Amino acid sequence: MYDILTGLSLVEVSSFVASPTAGLYMAQFGADVIRVDQIGGGQDFHRWPVTRQNDSLSWENLNRAKRSLALDLTRPEGRDLLVELTRKVGNLVTNLPAKGFLAHDRLAEGRPDLVTVRIMGWPDGSVALDYTANAAVGYTALTGPVEDPRPVNHVLPAWDLLTGAYAAFAMLAAVRRRELTGEGGEVRLPLTDIAIGSAANLGRVAEVLYTGRDRERLGNAVFGTIGRDFVTRDGVRFMLVAINERQWQGLVKALGIADAIAAIEIERGVTFADDDGARFAHRDAIFAAIEHEVAQYDHADLATLFDVNGVVHGPYRTMMEAVEDPRLVTENPVFAITADNPSGFAYPAAGAFATLPGLERMVPAPAPRNGQHSEAILADVMGLSSGEIGKLIDQGIAGTDL
Amino acid sequence: MYDILTGLSLVEVSSFVASPTAGLYMAQFGADVIRVDQIGGGQDFHRWPVTRQNDSLSWENLNRAKRSLALDLTRPEGRDLLVELTRKVGNLVTNLPAKGFLAHDRLAEGRPDLVTVRIMGWPDGSVALDYTANAAVGYTALTGPVEDPRPVNHVLPAWDLLTGAYAAFAMLAAVRRRELTGEGGEVRLPLTDIAIGSAANLGRVAEVLYTGRDRERLGNAVFGTIGRDFVTRDGVRFMLVAINERQWQGLVKALGIADAIAAIEIERGVTFADDDGARFAHRDAIFAAIEHEVAQYDHADLATLFDVNGVVHGPYRTMMEAVEDPRLVTENPVFAITADNPSGFAYPAAGAFATLPGLERMVPAPAPRNGQHSEAILADVMGLSSGEIGKLIDQGIAGTDL
Repeated sequence: MYDILTGLSLVEVSSFVASPTAGLYMAQFGADVIRVDQIGGGQDFHRWPVTRQNDSLSWENLNRAKRSLALDLTRPEGRDLLVELTRKVGNLVTNLPAKGFLAHDRLAEGRPDLVTVRIMGWPDGSVALDYTANAAVGYTALTGPVEDPRPVNHVLPAWDLLTGAYAAFAMLAAVRRRELTGEGGEVRLPLTDIAIGSAANLGRVAEVLYTGRDRERLGNAVFGTIGRDFVTRDGVRFMLVAINERQWQGLVKALGIADAIAAIEIERGVTFADDDGARFAHRDAIFAAIEHEVAQYDHADLATLFDVNGVVHGPYRTMMEAVEDPRLVTENPVFAITADNPSGFAYPAAGAFATLPGLERMVPAPAPRNGQHSEAILADVMGLSSGEIGKLIDQGIAGTDL
Repeated sequence: MYDILTGLSLVEVSSFVASPTAGLYMAQFGADVIRVDQIGGGQDFHRWPVTRQNDSLSWENLNRAKRSLALDLTRPEGRDLLVELTRKVGNLVTNLPAKGFLAHDRLAEGRPDLVTVRIMGWPDGSVALDYTANAAVGYTALTGPVEDPRPVNHVLPAWDLLTGAYAAFAMLAAVRRRELTGEGGEVRLPLTDIAIGSAANLGRVAEVLYTGRDRERLGNAVFGTIGRDFVTRDGVRFMLVAINERQWQGLVKALGIADAIAAIEIERGVTFADDDGARFAHRDAIFAAIEHEVAQYDHADLATLFDVNGVVHGPYRTMMEAVEDPRLVTENPVFAITADNPSGFAYPAAGAFATLPGLERMVPAPAPRNGQHSEAILADVMGLSSGEIGKLIDQGIAGTDL
C-alpha cells in the first residue's frame, strides 16, 4: 500500500475478477474503497481456490485493503441504503446491470455529479465472461500447439485483468474531469469491446482485413520476430526472444552462429541485419541453427552465456517453482508475509504492482471480513446514529462480522 | 476519442506494446501525448504485421491520436532536447532504462515535481518480455490441451496490455498526488512484478503454498466452476460457462438435465445447489451429461435455447470471423472506418474502450507520421523560434515528415 490516492473514496459493488481488481488497485494506492456485499457474502465469496474451511484464497486477495459493508440487497431497504451511500460517496465501480437498481441515471437523480464506472459483458447488456470473450475475438484460434487445430483458451483471465486496470484508469480520468468541470457521468466498459479493441490496437483487425486471411498458428513462436521455446541438452525448456537488433546480435554472438546465419543469407538471398521481418520470414532456417547449438549446452551454462550477451531468455516454470524464486516472491519487496487474512492462513501477499522509490511501501492490508466495517461506514459515511445502526442490524438489513 | 483529459500533456518515449498503450489510452481520452522517436522511426516502427510498403499496422494503431517529435537520439544534442522537453511537460511514460539518460533523478534536477512512469522488465533492470514473464510465473504450465504436457504461451501479449493500462492508471494517480501535494516522483512498473502480483491477486500464490502442489492442467475447462468447450451435432465448438447460481439453473433447464444431475447427486452423495465447488469437483459426471445433450443439437438451435435461459456461451471464432461480427466491429460504435492512416490503408479502427453515454465519441484519430509535429512541438512547447527550429532540422537533430 501507498498513500497516493488518500482522500478519494469509492463504492464497489462487484464480483469475480475485473471489477474487484479496479477497486483493489485504488485501495492499494490509499483510496477508501467500500466494498458492499450481500450479508454472508455475494456470489464470488467462496470462489475457488478455497481452504478446507471454504475461505476463498481468491476473494481474500482480490479484496485487500478494502472496507466491507454487508447489506441485505434482496430487500428494498438494503438496496435503498446502497443507493444512498453511493450518492454520498459520489464514485461507484460495479459490474451490476446498467438497467438495474444501480442504473447510473437513477443514482444521478440524487447526485448529479456522480461518477459510475460500469464493467459489462457485451455492450447490449448480455453476459460475456473472460473465456467467451476470448473465444469471440479469435485469440483462441492462434494459441496452442501447431499440430493441434483445436482452439486454446488462455488460463490467465487476461481480459478481466485488463478491464480492471483500465477501469481504475477510467475512474481517475472521470474524477479528474469532474474536479475541473463539475460534471460526472457513466463510463461503460464492456469486456468484448476491450477484447476486440485490443486486437485492433495490436494491428490484428487491420491485418486480417489487409491480408484477407487469418494468421497461421505459431505455437510458442513470436509473430514477426525471432522468438520461440527451445530445449537444452539437459532437458530444460526455455523461452528465447530477440526482438531488437542488439538482442539479435547478442544471440548470434552467444551461440557462435554468425557463419551459419551468413550461409542462410546467401542461400535465401536476404540480409538479416536491421530486419526483424526478414528474420521472421526465414525463421525455419534460423530456428534450426539455434536448435542445433542450444542442444549442445546444459541450461545453467547456456543461461550464463545468454546473460553475458544480453539475450532475453527464461525457463518455463510451474507456479510452485515461481513462488520459490527470490526475484519474484521470497525476496521481492512487492511481497510481504501476511498473517491477518480472513482464512487464517499466513503467506506472502502482493502489494501494489507499482514501486515508488523514496515512498514507504506498507505491508499489504488484509481483505475485510464480511460486514467488518458496516457500523463504521454507516456512522462515518452515512451519518447514522448508533440507534439507527442498531435497528438496521436487528432488522437484518445491515450485517456485521460479529 | 473523448475530451476527458483535455489539458493534460505527457511525453512518451517507448516501444512495442506496454508503454505505447499507456500513452494511447490517455490520448484517446484527449490528453496531448507527445511521442518522441528516433528520426526515421525507432525499433518498433516496422513491427509486424506490415503492409507491402513496410508500414506497420501494429505501430499505426498503438500510436493513434499522439503527436510525433522526431529527434536524433544518438547525438547528445537530440537527447538534451528530449530532456528539456520532458522537464517542460512534467509527465513522462517510458520503457527506457532506469539508469539511462532518462533516469528520473537526473530529469528531476531540472523539474523537481516531474512524474515519471517507467515500464521495466525485471525490477533489477534486466530485460523481460511478455513471453518470458509468462513462462517465469507458470501460467504456461496450465495453458493448453490436457494430453500434451508442453507449456503453452498465450499469444495475446496479456502482461504488456495489463502493464500499459495500469501505467495509465498510475500516471493519473501520481498526477493527482502532485496536484494535491506538489510532489512528483517515479513510478516503476516491472512486467514480472505485474505478472507474479496478478497471480497473487488471483489467489494462485496462496493456493500453491496452501495445497503444496501445482494445480492440474484443465485444457479449456474453467477452474472452480462449470465451464468448458463443447461441440454441437453440426460440429461447432463453443465455450460454455455457468459461474453463478442463475446461470447454472439456466443451463440445467435449457438442456433438460435436471434428472441426470439429480442422479449424479445421489450417486456421489453431494448437493450441487449453491455450491460451485461441488459442481467443479464432480465435473466429470456433469460434463458428460452436458456433452450428451449438446451433441443432439445443431448450434443455431442450441444458441437460441441457451439465450432464452440466460446461459453464457459463445462459439470459437477466428479473427477473420470476429471482424465480420456486427456486435464486435461492423456495427460497433467503438469502431469507425479510418482512411487517414500512415499506411494509406483504410479500415475500421478502434477508439477508446470506454463508452460514455451522452458524450460525443469522435472518430479515431490517425497515428502521426514520424516527425509530423516536430516543428509545432518545438515551437509551442519548447518555445523555440523558427530560426532555431530550422537550424535543428538542418543539422539533422530534429526531423520532419517532409
